[in-house]
Amino acid sequence: MDAIISLAKRRGFVYPGSDVYGGLANSWDYGPLGAELRRNIKEAWWWRFVQKRDDVVGIETALIMNPKVWQASGHLATFSDPLVECKKCHARYRADQLEGACPSCGGKEFSEARQFNLMFKTFIGPAEEAANVAYLRPETAQGMFVNVKNVLDSNRVKLPFGIAQIGKAFRNEITPGNFIFRTREFEQMEIEYFIRPPANDEEWQNVFEHWRNEMHAWMRDVGIDAARVSEFEVPAEDRAHYSKRTIDFMFAFPFGVKELYGLAYRTDFDLKNHMEQSGKDLSYLDPETNERTVPHCVEPTWGVDRTLLAVLLSAYTEEGEGDDARVVLKLKPALAPFKAAVFPLLKNKPELVAKAKEVRSQLMDGDPRLLPIAWDDRGNIGKRYLAQDEIGTPACITVDFQTLEDDTVTIRDRDTKEQRRVAVADLPSVLGEFLAR
Amino acid sequence: MDAIISLAKRRGFVYPGSDVYGGLANSWDYGPLGAELRRNIKEAWWWRFVQKRDDVVGIETALIMNPKVWQASGHLATFSDPLVECKKCHARYRADQLEGACPSCGGKEFSEARQFNLMFKTFIGPAEEAANVAYLRPETAQGMFVNVKNVLDSNRVKLPFGIAQIGKAFRNEITPGNFIFRTREFEQMEIEYFIRPPANDEEWQNVFEHWRNEMHAWMRDVGIDAARVSEFEVPAEDRAHYSKRTIDFMFAFPFGVKELYGLAYRTDFDLKNHMEQSGKDLSYLDPETNERTVPHCVEPTWGVDRTLLAVLLSAYTEEGEGDDARVVLKLKPALAPFKAAVFPLLKNKPELVAKAKEVRSQLMDGDPRLLPIAWDDRGNIGKRYLAQDEIGTPACITVDFQTLEDDTVTIRDRDTKEQRRVAVADLPSVLGEFLAR
Repeated sequence: MDAIISLAKRRGFVYPGSDVYGGLANSWDYGPLGAELRRNIKEAWWWRFVQKRDDVVGIETALIMNPKVWQASGHLATFSDPLVECKKCHARYRADQLEGACPSCGGKEFSEARQFNLMFKTFIGPAEEAANVAYLRPETAQGMFVNVKNVLDSNRVKLPFGIAQIGKAFRNEITPGNFIFRTREFEQMEIEYFIRPPANDEEWQNVFEHWRNEMHAWMRDVGIDAARVSEFEVPAEDRAHYSKRTIDFMFAFPFGVKELYGLAYRTDFDLKNHMEQSGKDLSYLDPETNERTVPHCVEPTWGVDRTLLAVLLSAYTEEGEGDDARVVLKLKPALAPFKAAVFPLLKNKPELVAKAKEVRSQLMDGDPRLLPIAWDDRGNIGKRYLAQDEIGTPACITVDFQTLEDDTVTIRDRDTKEQRRVAVADLPSVLGEFLAR
Repeated sequence: MDAIISLAKRRGFVYPGSDVYGGLANSWDYGPLGAELRRNIKEAWWWRFVQKRDDVVGIETALIMNPKVWQASGHLATFSDPLVECKKCHARYRADQLEGACPSCGGKEFSEARQFNLMFKTFIGPAEEAANVAYLRPETAQGMFVNVKNVLDSNRVKLPFGIAQIGKAFRNEITPGNFIFRTREFEQMEIEYFIRPPANDEEWQNVFEHWRNEMHAWMRDVGIDAARVSEFEVPAEDRAHYSKRTIDFMFAFPFGVKELYGLAYRTDFDLKNHMEQSGKDLSYLDPETNERTVPHCVEPTWGVDRTLLAVLLSAYTEEGEGDDARVVLKLKPALAPFKAAVFPLLKNKPELVAKAKEVRSQLMDGDPRLLPIAWDDRGNIGKRYLAQDEIGTPACITVDFQTLEDDTVTIRDRDTKEQRRVAVADLPSVLGEFLAR
């Protein structure tokens, strides 16, 4: 884990948040490489689950919603953790995660546990009074539930259909931690998939199975190591207040086997509550039976930050010995921050530098999926390869003296370290093959 | 304006936020078409200003930052509006926007103006006490300033270089309004472009001019009507506390000529303040002179929501009369929510439906830039064209009986309404030409 955190900071994937001010507890900023990796993950998700599917539409809803939403969803009443305070040093902990003595001072006496709501509170408008209280959303899901009617009215969707969203959510965790694993501010990719009220358990279980398979397929897509993934069937007493069945997809992180993704059957809990609280009819008119029903909902949820962490951990490889030793991020090429790198063999030969710039510039004017493309003219070729391996660049292209004669370059494969010569004109298709891996 | 708002809701571009609860003042949610349009705008921006440029890197920083950031940036002290209250009906207004009588009740007496800070306040952790106060960021810019050192350390960037970010920001406006023009929650696309401390005015003015031109080029790229754009040179007394020169790019909205984008020369104000407040050295070691200097900064800023509104307003066209009347969104094809639509000529001919599905599915498995592709089998072809015109779909592809014989389809151009036959095999390249317009 330390190797990942160090690499992440050194190469510009993840920095401590508000770093110059000594940070802000468990807040992280994404540097240039992390920002590209995050974008690629979100792109891949949107492409697979929204754009390629006929039965899912995407939306983007406000982070601050009407507080009545959180009353109806049950978050105001029940989205809380039991909080205790050490009587000696006043450090605060989640009562259910505490084992006897205070981890900070060793104290053994604690205050009575009180429920602490995890939603961040703020005020809309100038007066800090109860009427103006609002909350930062603790999940994106409610944005989909309150828009079901708008989506039905403006799009010709039929059950079953899903509404998807990618966006930030906030939880005022008492004890966040483990790098970007648990942070107070995080990003979710979530689908609320609506189905007819099931006539029997099999009907919703089939949909549940579909999404379970899709989540495994997604993990293969983005290169999350299947050997480190397991499923945890959440027992009834531990499930969220809205769920009839939940599977947690667990990943073997260096700090333990922890939740990566979740899949829950939320029944009609949310829509029914919103109907009651709002007095609006959120039911679905079945075009075949002409009956009005309240859809049930299966919800697969992915965390962007946890995906990024699992992807980095799965890709991180130390291999070779002595002079051959290297760190290589074996990222899926489509996710890599740089899709390729271009080098002039020698920095002090203007004709090589000019030609290399031309090669890179041609690639950059082509297929946008090949962007961005790195440039490096420092040190020797070996060091440049190592620098690109460490950040997962799938292909390194070198312009040498032969290039000036026959317009071919060497292309070096990150994973096999093999080099071959290809015509400059063939680079887009050759790099396209890399991306499809 | 009403036509746009109505179209936006009816077709799923923009819905009132928390709609089922009667909304939340000036909060808006983006529906399926709005979410795609927003994504396309952000994609185009990132592509143009980050991925295609060698001198700009992108980052993604936390929305909640250490409050010391806002002390150093001057936001805690000066980011406020003068607030007055009507003595009769207690409605609250910005003193500088009020003209004599209360717009709500006509009252003429107001409280003394008091400064109201526009940052949303919240609390980190369980106790609502001063030590735990935090703010939602009112601009993305400070995320770049506090990461200058991290970016310098982890990337081999040389002055001049820019750090870019797309992300949400929040301002607790006293009087928001005009649809998605001014909202309390909004999204920015921002670049902090760092330069050597200028030896004379010309040095920073050249950089300023570069970005001024780039902003106009961007507007052309995304189809913002140049005839509605003007520049406003902000006089010294109206400039933000950090700015030595500001140009506002104004757009003629239906509700008036208002600010669309901004370009400011922030000097070394931010970095100097962060150096003082944090005690950290944020200077740049010039590799040529070996001297340490504090970079100056030119900042072009774009609002995502305002871009979307200006793009919609520029594209919205009512044309023709009688049976020929239509509403057409003449969006740049690359920005359109659907890149194409595929229809079977008749819904009740299974062989046409099957072939049309096959054509669409082939396109969807190809170049992801062509996604998503709409499907419509309702009503007659004429109505389907109108429905696609209204949401800006550049090309409509119809599978008819001839398709079954010679594998050609008709493709109909949104803007010219002209149809021609093309081979199914040629569709990807023909649609590629549409996208390049």
